[in-house]
Parts: sequence; structure tokens; C-alpha cells
Amino acid sequence: MREPLFNNVTIIGVGLIGASCALALKDRGLCGTVCGYGRKEANLKQAGELGIINEYSLEIKKACEHADLVILSTPVGLFKKIVHEMRDVLKENTLITDVGSIKGPLVNELEELMPEGVRYIGSHPIAGSDRSGIAHARADLFDGARCIVTPTARSEKSTVRQITTLWESCGGKVEIMDPMLHDQIYAAVSHLPHLIAYALVNTVDDSSAEYLKYAGPGFKDTTRIALSSPELWRDISLLNGKNLLALIERFEHNLNTIASLIRDADASGLEHEFSKARTLREKC
Amino acid sequence: MREPLFNNVTIIGVGLIGASCALALKDRGLCGTVCGYGRKEANLKQAGELGIINEYSLEIKKACEHADLVILSTPVGLFKKIVHEMRDVLKENTLITDVGSIKGPLVNELEELMPEGVRYIGSHPIAGSDRSGIAHARADLFDGARCIVTPTARSEKSTVRQITTLWESCGGKVEIMDPMLHDQIYAAVSHLPHLIAYALVNTVDDSSAEYLKYAGPGFKDTTRIALSSPELWRDISLLNGKNLLALIERFEHNLNTIASLIRDADASGLEHEFSKARTLREKC
Repeated sequence: MREPLFNNVTIIGVGLIGASCALALKDRGLCGTVCGYGRKEANLKQAGELGIINEYSLEIKKACEHADLVILSTPVGLFKKIVHEMRDVLKENTLITDVGSIKGPLVNELEELMPEGVRYIGSHPIAGSDRSGIAHARADLFDGARCIVTPTARSEKSTVRQITTLWESCGGKVEIMDPMLHDQIYAAVSHLPHLIAYALVNTVDDSSAEYLKYAGPGFKDTTRIALSSPELWRDISLLNGKNLLALIERFEHNLNTIASLIRDADASGLEHEFSKARTLREKC
Repeated sequence: MREPLFNNVTIIGVGLIGASCALALKDRGLCGTVCGYGRKEANLKQAGELGIINEYSLEIKKACEHADLVILSTPVGLFKKIVHEMRDVLKENTLITDVGSIKGPLVNELEELMPEGVRYIGSHPIAGSDRSGIAHARADLFDGARCIVTPTARSEKSTVRQITTLWESCGGKVEIMDPMLHDQIYAAVSHLPHLIAYALVNTVDDSSAEYLKYAGPGFKDTTRIALSSPELWRDISLLNGKNLLALIERFEHNLNTIASLIRDADASGLEHEFSKARTLREKC
């Protein structure tokens, strides 16, 4: 077994991603003890029984007081509140990261909340899906997954290296990125598609809920992410609101272009719009 | 081997669906000779080599003159032109159907074009995907697939039974439906999602084509149908334009509701919208 990277690891929010972090670290012998914190004791007990965590606490302070590494993996809207609660008990030199889908200004706000000597850098492993919960957690969830790491001007190089090692050790491919750029990119390729999927399902329901039984594989693919956690996507939508509002406008412009072409019966214009999209999509 | 349902079958447009019809009929011994018509001789030759068709012609009249069953499986925008070209040579009692994603008024128009003694009823087997071409054709493509059959007031019961037998013999589950209702339902669960997928890919490109490399499984699922044939979806969009324009408006209303909730930082309102969609999507 390798020398553990971290003796005491605390997972705040033991869901799909948090539990998979714990399993990935344990599986590779990268940590000593894993402590879980969460609101639902039954879930934490089950995580213990499944060998995901070694111990747990329902009190954030207790869960964090011995931690060498804390991973924030609750819905992203809770991060600031959690850091406020834990900051007094953190040991000097503890490393904090998160796995949230929002970076941007939030990273700077979290950084400012950290007590002297505690190091924080944000992460965003692109893993998971519409599934959630520890039942789907896997030690290999991050194998080959892109992991965005978003240091700021205040981050120390040694800390960036440590976070990079953490994710690479779990199988991820690390990419260092400016937090603001992260939020622009993921607004377009992830957050907007979620809003669209939710709105599309609600639109079919406006016609008739009965119509949904005629949904084929195309509809199911297009709306699969509407199965995602409403609580999580509520937070993401609010925290990345500015980018999203601009993109919704842009998207509606593109959809209205198609509507105008239909209204004008402009066959070649429609084919051009669709071909442009298909050519781009083929590159994904 | 069973008694063939049809001695001479003509497939107009030997692509994924047309070729799979041919394979499904041949595989079950339901037809004698299959003749293919298409614009690209190389494709027809390949279909012959793959055992999908027995013969082909580049002339519609020649391809149809002996047919007992004609299946129209080109892009739906060509159906009327094709029926105009074939109508003079069709034998009395020939059965014509199509596999187009549009029924509605088109079914009545095609019915009126048929010469005396030739029977036409529209079909829409819900099979296929973003894939196209004979390389993906399969004899079991319709196994368990919903097949909508859309008779009109003028259709004879015996013809409806014959079309039903045709699709059931190929493995499909037949549902008889009013052609206008068909177009309303499929505008919502299929046609609108395609327009949205195309518009979404173009929206990401408006930000930067580079962003597409960050697309994860969620984006790929949501935009998979943007890989579909622009020519086909141009036709469908125009032929179902009225339903689609109304749905685009309705969809934008739902997306704007989400935008307003983001603007107002209305967390519980957002969670409500998303939860409503998730609950509906779980029923698919």
C-alpha cells in the first residue's frame, strides 16, 4: 500500500460524488480514515455499512476537527454556510476542496472565508449523471474523467500540485482553469441544457401528460438530465444566473431563427441551420 | 416458410427504415421479390450485395409497375412528387404505405392522389434514431416498436387490417390513430426536441466552438438527435410547421418562466419547476 496522501479525510455530503471520492481514495490506499458528515443519519449509517466511510458525525465541527482534507460535496448552494460552520475547528494546513459545478465568484468567496493557514482550491470533476445517491457510488467514477481545478491568484503552487495529485490519483485528467471561464463554459455545455430539458418536459405536459407515453429514444435522450436533482440545479441556476440569462436569450434567438424559417417556408435556410448544428455535434 | 403477404414489394428510398422493412419482410418470409428505388445507384447496388433487395431501378415507374406493396421511405417532403410519378403504372389493388414522421393533412393529400383501386394508408413506425443508411439496417428494427397507423374516414377496414398485419408481422405494436392527433403528439415528443437540439448546439457555437470539447454525457445525450438528417428534419419542420410554431411559443414561455425565477432569485420557484419536470420525466 502507498503512503496515504491524507490521514484524515472528511466528506461533507455523502452522495454519489462524495461517496465515490471516498471509495476512490480508499481503493488506492490514498487515505487513512474517512469521516462523513450529512443531514440524514440513515444514509451515513448505510455508507458505513457499505465501507464507504469509517465514521460519521451529524455535527460539522466534529466531522472536521481532525481533517487533513475536506471535500465539500453537498449541493453547491450550501458551501458558504458549511465553511462558516467549520472554519473555527480546522487544523492549520488542512486542504479544502469542493466538487461543485459552480466555480466563478464562489471560489473567491470561499477562499476569503478560510481561516489563516487553511488552504482552499476549487475542483469540478466531470462525473456522475442523472443518478444520485451512494447506491451508485463507484471507486472508478473518476477514471478518465476531466477534473477542472480552479486556482486563483492567491493559490500557492504547492497546493495546486497537491489538488492535482489528488484527482490524478483518483484516475482523473486534471485541467487548470480560470474560475470565471469555467462558469461560462459550463453554463453553455451543461447548465443551459439542464434548464432546456426541464422546460421541454413541462412543455409536453402543457399539451397533455398522456403524450409522454409516445416518447421515443430521442425524447428520452434529450430529457434524461431532467431526472437530475431539482435542489442541486436550483443552486447552480442561481449561482450561475448571469451567464445563464445571457445564454437563454442567445438560445431563444437561435430557436426563433428556426421558427422564422418555418414561418417563411424557407427550406434551404432550415437545412442550413440544421446542417451547421449537425457538423458541430459530430465533433463532440 | 409462410405464404408471402405480398409477392412484389417496392421500397422507395433504401435507407435505414426502408432497408430494415425489406429485411424484416424477407427474414420472416413475408414477401417474394423486393425492388428498390433510389437516386444513388451505388447505394442500391450495395443494398443488393447485402441481400436487402433483389433488384433495383433508378426509374420510379419501372420500380413500381409490378408492386403489390409500395413502402415510401424517402424524406417525407418527397412523397407527393413520388406518388405523382408512380400513379399511372400502379396495378389495381396495390397497397401503398409510408413510414414518414408526418401524417396529418399529408395523409389526406396522398390519399387523394391515389388512382382508382389503389389503396393507401399512412404508417409511422417509431424506430431508427440519429443513425441513417443501410449499414445500420436490421431485420429486427421494428421488434417491439410502436407503429402508428393512420387511416382516414375513407379507408376500408380490410386495408387497415392488412397494414396492421404487415407491421405486426415485422414485430411492431400497432396503434390506430387519427392523422391530425399524430402530428400534434409527435410535434411535442419528437419534432420540437429536434429543433431544440439543433438550436442548442448552435448556441454553444455562438459562445465558442472550443467549448464543445468540454461537453459531457449530459450535453451529448441532450443533443444526440442533432446528428439527425438535416434534409429529413427540414421536411418534417415545414410539414408540421403550425403545430411546431405553437409549441416553440409554449416552450419559450416555460424557459422564460425559469429565466424570471433566476432573475428574481426565487429558489423555491425554481425547485418547483424542476421537480415538476423530473416527476413527469420519471414516468417516461
